[in-house]
Amino acid sequence: MSFSIGQKASFSKTITEQDVATFAELSGDHNPVHLDENYAKGTRFGARIAHGAFSVAVISTVLGMQLPGPGTVYMSQTLKFVKPVYFDDTITANVEITALRADKGIITLKTECANQRGEKIAEGEAVVFHENAKGGEK
Amino acid sequence: MSFSIGQKASFSKTITEQDVATFAELSGDHNPVHLDENYAKGTRFGARIAHGAFSVAVISTVLGMQLPGPGTVYMSQTLKFVKPVYFDDTITANVEITALRADKGIITLKTECANQRGEKIAEGEAVVFHENAKGGEK
Repeated sequence: MSFSIGQKASFSKTITEQDVATFAELSGDHNPVHLDENYAKGTRFGARIAHGAFSVAVISTVLGMQLPGPGTVYMSQTLKFVKPVYFDDTITANVEITALRADKGIITLKTECANQRGEKIAEGEAVVFHENAKGGEK
Repeated sequence: MSFSIGQKASFSKTITEQDVATFAELSGDHNPVHLDENYAKGTRFGARIAHGAFSVAVISTVLGMQLPGPGTVYMSQTLKFVKPVYFDDTITANVEITALRADKGIITLKTECANQRGEKIAEGEAVVFHENAKGGEK
């Protein structure tokens, strides 16, 4: 396996009502904007939305499964939440290598999430370690 | 409800093997460092570790449930992963308000996660919106 600047990968996941309920149980985050339709109707969103952590999860999945892939060690992530994710929206995480530090095996990737309408919902940057990134572009 | 710089809150969650399996199903992130004990033994970690997104989830929970609490809208999060989280470790997320923009209802919080041995596992910053933050410190 070798890595180079400009390499891209993506992964998509549709977020269902059940996914949000499962994540609420898993995390303890029962914020009513995610779970209470009547409450959510009164917010700026107008309906229940998924936890922001779903965008992190989808990014983490493409990093750990595809690029750089298994063996990836997450070092940092920045993420700006641009638009809400509604139930049954499909999040697509797109990642692209923007920098490589061959001496340390460190890879920087631009990380963006979009919905099924092509609207950007989150954007940021991930820094990861991968053993195979050592020694530069092969 | 009113907010002021220096306000703190925290939330703890123990991450079990079942939690990691549930999150792998939910996210699609089946990176073997989280799921395959034999594989994980051969890594720098020496055992399976939890997904980094668990730290984000625990931070999101304290923000959405306690401080600023229900009504919180996540605008951004930065997070540096300092140490791994092993199975049955307890993550405590500590958040503290570091800045308030009363004109826009925007709150900045320092976000840190520690394990049950008091070791820092993640650190970063969250920016959120909350209606009750408008108008300044009350």
